[in-house]
Amino acid sequence: MQLRGKSLLGGLASGEGSSAFRAVDPFDRTDLDPLFCEATDEEIDRAVELAEESFDSYRRKTPDEKAAFLEQVAEEIEILGDRLTGRANAETGLPQARLVAERGRTTSQLRLFAEVVREGSWVDARIDRAVPDRKPVPKPDLRRMLVPLGPVVVFGASNFPLAFSVAGGDTASALAAGCPVVAKAHPAHPGTSELVARAVQRALRKTAMPDGLFSLIQATRPEASIRLVQHPLTRAVGFTGSLRAGRALYDAAAARRDPIPVYAEMGSINPVFLLPRALAEEGKTIAEGLLQSVTLGVGQFCTNPGLVVGLAGEALNRFLIHLGELVAESKPGTMLHSGILSAYESGVQRFKETPGVSVIAECAAKPNPEKTEAGAFLFATDAATFLEKDFLSEEVFGPSTLVVQCESSEEIRQIARHLEGNLTASLHATEEDLEGAEDLIGILERKVGRLVLNGFPTGVEVCPAMHHGGPYPATTDSRSTSVGTAAIVRFARPVCYQDFPDTALPVELRGK
Amino acid sequence: MQLRGKSLLGGLASGEGSSAFRAVDPFDRTDLDPLFCEATDEEIDRAVELAEESFDSYRRKTPDEKAAFLEQVAEEIEILGDRLTGRANAETGLPQARLVAERGRTTSQLRLFAEVVREGSWVDARIDRAVPDRKPVPKPDLRRMLVPLGPVVVFGASNFPLAFSVAGGDTASALAAGCPVVAKAHPAHPGTSELVARAVQRALRKTAMPDGLFSLIQATRPEASIRLVQHPLTRAVGFTGSLRAGRALYDAAAARRDPIPVYAEMGSINPVFLLPRALAEEGKTIAEGLLQSVTLGVGQFCTNPGLVVGLAGEALNRFLIHLGELVAESKPGTMLHSGILSAYESGVQRFKETPGVSVIAECAAKPNPEKTEAGAFLFATDAATFLEKDFLSEEVFGPSTLVVQCESSEEIRQIARHLEGNLTASLHATEEDLEGAEDLIGILERKVGRLVLNGFPTGVEVCPAMHHGGPYPATTDSRSTSVGTAAIVRFARPVCYQDFPDTALPVELRGK
Repeated sequence: MQLRGKSLLGGLASGEGSSAFRAVDPFDRTDLDPLFCEATDEEIDRAVELAEESFDSYRRKTPDEKAAFLEQVAEEIEILGDRLTGRANAETGLPQARLVAERGRTTSQLRLFAEVVREGSWVDARIDRAVPDRKPVPKPDLRRMLVPLGPVVVFGASNFPLAFSVAGGDTASALAAGCPVVAKAHPAHPGTSELVARAVQRALRKTAMPDGLFSLIQATRPEASIRLVQHPLTRAVGFTGSLRAGRALYDAAAARRDPIPVYAEMGSINPVFLLPRALAEEGKTIAEGLLQSVTLGVGQFCTNPGLVVGLAGEALNRFLIHLGELVAESKPGTMLHSGILSAYESGVQRFKETPGVSVIAECAAKPNPEKTEAGAFLFATDAATFLEKDFLSEEVFGPSTLVVQCESSEEIRQIARHLEGNLTASLHATEEDLEGAEDLIGILERKVGRLVLNGFPTGVEVCPAMHHGGPYPATTDSRSTSVGTAAIVRFARPVCYQDFPDTALPVELRGK
Repeated sequence: MQLRGKSLLGGLASGEGSSAFRAVDPFDRTDLDPLFCEATDEEIDRAVELAEESFDSYRRKTPDEKAAFLEQVAEEIEILGDRLTGRANAETGLPQARLVAERGRTTSQLRLFAEVVREGSWVDARIDRAVPDRKPVPKPDLRRMLVPLGPVVVFGASNFPLAFSVAGGDTASALAAGCPVVAKAHPAHPGTSELVARAVQRALRKTAMPDGLFSLIQATRPEASIRLVQHPLTRAVGFTGSLRAGRALYDAAAARRDPIPVYAEMGSINPVFLLPRALAEEGKTIAEGLLQSVTLGVGQFCTNPGLVVGLAGEALNRFLIHLGELVAESKPGTMLHSGILSAYESGVQRFKETPGVSVIAECAAKPNPEKTEAGAFLFATDAATFLEKDFLSEEVFGPSTLVVQCESSEEIRQIARHLEGNLTASLHATEEDLEGAEDLIGILERKVGRLVLNGFPTGVEVCPAMHHGGPYPATTDSRSTSVGTAAIVRFARPVCYQDFPDTALPVELRGK
């Protein structure tokens, strides 16, 4: 199975563009074969048109048929075997073991959404029966359920080449809701994207789904992304990536004649609050857990903890020394691509040059730039400096974290109030700490989508109670989650049927 | 109880502005007392700041306390008695009987949301228990529920001075969700707004709620509205009105550093499709129902049917003749204010001047401009003309409707496909008609929020299964409803708690 280096439009490979690009192996910065053809405007338009054409037939498939399709996608991805994880490893530098786990998560998500579709209650069917003799006017029969929005554009994420990309969470939930998908491959892993897209297409054919239900666009031009978002037939957008790119997509959607929802998951520094007793009693264990969380995947997780807040004093000093040792001993790691590495390097550089911010420790082994490597950094500052310089609360994507040493609990709360929206906040607290932390928790509830107690934010469970979202700039829509079964409703809207007989109602709403 | 002509900020009347305006009685175009002081930028900011200050204390009130407050608001509105409906009548020209009914709807909505809050399931609590021995990693305890967004700005609608204004649907659902409200009075009925706002304030005091929970802004400047939407502490916006004003608010929110949701309900022409057998068998009855729906409230309903589509032929001709007679016999009515009347007159004039559009009938009695009166109009055209001229599918707010005479069922479907988003679509169809109407219904499902069979779109039931919304330009957010119990979630977002002990969890999520 050779990579074709083309976009996939409704079952057919298409490469009409005159320019092309290649993936780069971050381990040695060599170019990878094949060349990928940059999609043209016409190809982009065709993908969305095909999605629209397939919509009516797809949304009318039974829940069983949709579920079988999602399960077949999972199976076809598994059939790709080592070829998929091998290519993903070469394109992203992520270790095989991580990619195997991520593949497992991807296929589980698809199967979980298949269950959600079969079970069916996600449509939130509501039935209000008629009261013909009500005064002064009769009450009509009203029945309401969620229906799919229409064609959805999903942008692949660089840091999750499988679980948040071509057949990742957004694609799974959009297809589950009944929406066709046009996936935009992340330009850093076009080969991985092609492999997965072809698996989706095989699943389409095997389950007799309409071809146009799924397309893959290969493109590097920002205009290609804007065109996908502004296509008149596009009904919603899913994105995971940088604040700058996510905001550009949001703005493009808001500028449409008919604005559409954009679910962009963007920047988050995921603050960790160390309360005094927990810090005194568990400082060493917390430092070890934190180091793991900060360096996991070379810090390239949206839930990476980039900020730690605690009360200045002996316990925090000991914590810093211990964490510093761990940071110094940590190993450099290969980042996803050179762009992310340079952004990390400039972020770290900016912190280094900031008066009031000190480097507590850095990874002792020198990162090799030829291998796109980054090393961990531990910074510290005081509350006044942190509150004064806004860029200190912006995300530095990579394995660094900043510890703010506060003089009082009130200063800790001030830091919390100063924060923008985040995906998560974590607290390390004993029962006694918690008793005095009501105000802090109250502040954080307004700032984040998930509150973690005595744990770390990395590791996002896929389940009904998960909420992976948060106020801006963590996402562009705090009402919605990109992980967990609740994600299906982001691609749906209610329709109400008044006085319809059973025969003309959707199956979900029938019954006298 | 004298009207003060001031804004109400957190329990206190405030009138610091140097300019002022008056309401106008549309029955005789006389100015009404008192002068209303235009709110200053500082007063606007203070209202939102007070809302923010009250938020933490309000959101922590028990469901019973919040419900009691909502019920007290309903009671205080009832205590206003004829004074309220009298003033509303003078400011809007709406008949007393209609205003009494609208008041009933307003207080019912408040009481319904009180029930929703007491019952409690709207928070969609989801609990996933820990699995400490799961491999390869333990599963944490995850619990998720909806929490209120924060301060909400609600813009009063001109056409519903009670049910969609100061203490109308959006205010009721925002308060029910736990959000403070800053209401912006519609400048056409500032006195009605002040009376209702003072009722809300009395309810606040009687139920010991924080003063800042509710404020009223009196202003006519568009910049005042933009300022409310762009205030950094504002978390969401509810609006009912014109496409132009709604879009301006949406754009202002999207241009914020941190965009916020805007629920604007705007233009809708609410197409009515007459299928052949129903038209042949029931044409006369349908014409009578349609006339009622078109002229109800002088056509000033967002669900007013402005478009009728049917197959050209004898049955449609008979229908047109009968409907024409009814239109001719109908009586002119006083519109809400002179701005709405002029917009109606220009809309009608534009239709009149359009080649291919003919006037089938108009209200024979001459409307009196001194009484801000408008008369009904019935227009007809063919499908080609309708499809060619986009403005024929834009809303003309008032008692006019346009009948499109199609040559074939395919042409009817073409009209349906050509439509933009609408709140509703109605079908008149026999069982036999319905059998062949699957495609048409399929098209309409994508265009509207509510499908009505053998009925008319006016008259929106307040109940769990109601969906009052629809794709743009009917609203700016097709995922949300402004009527019915489901409206409460528009002002909420999920928060997930990981590994929290019962003592630190919200009551709704407790339990081992």
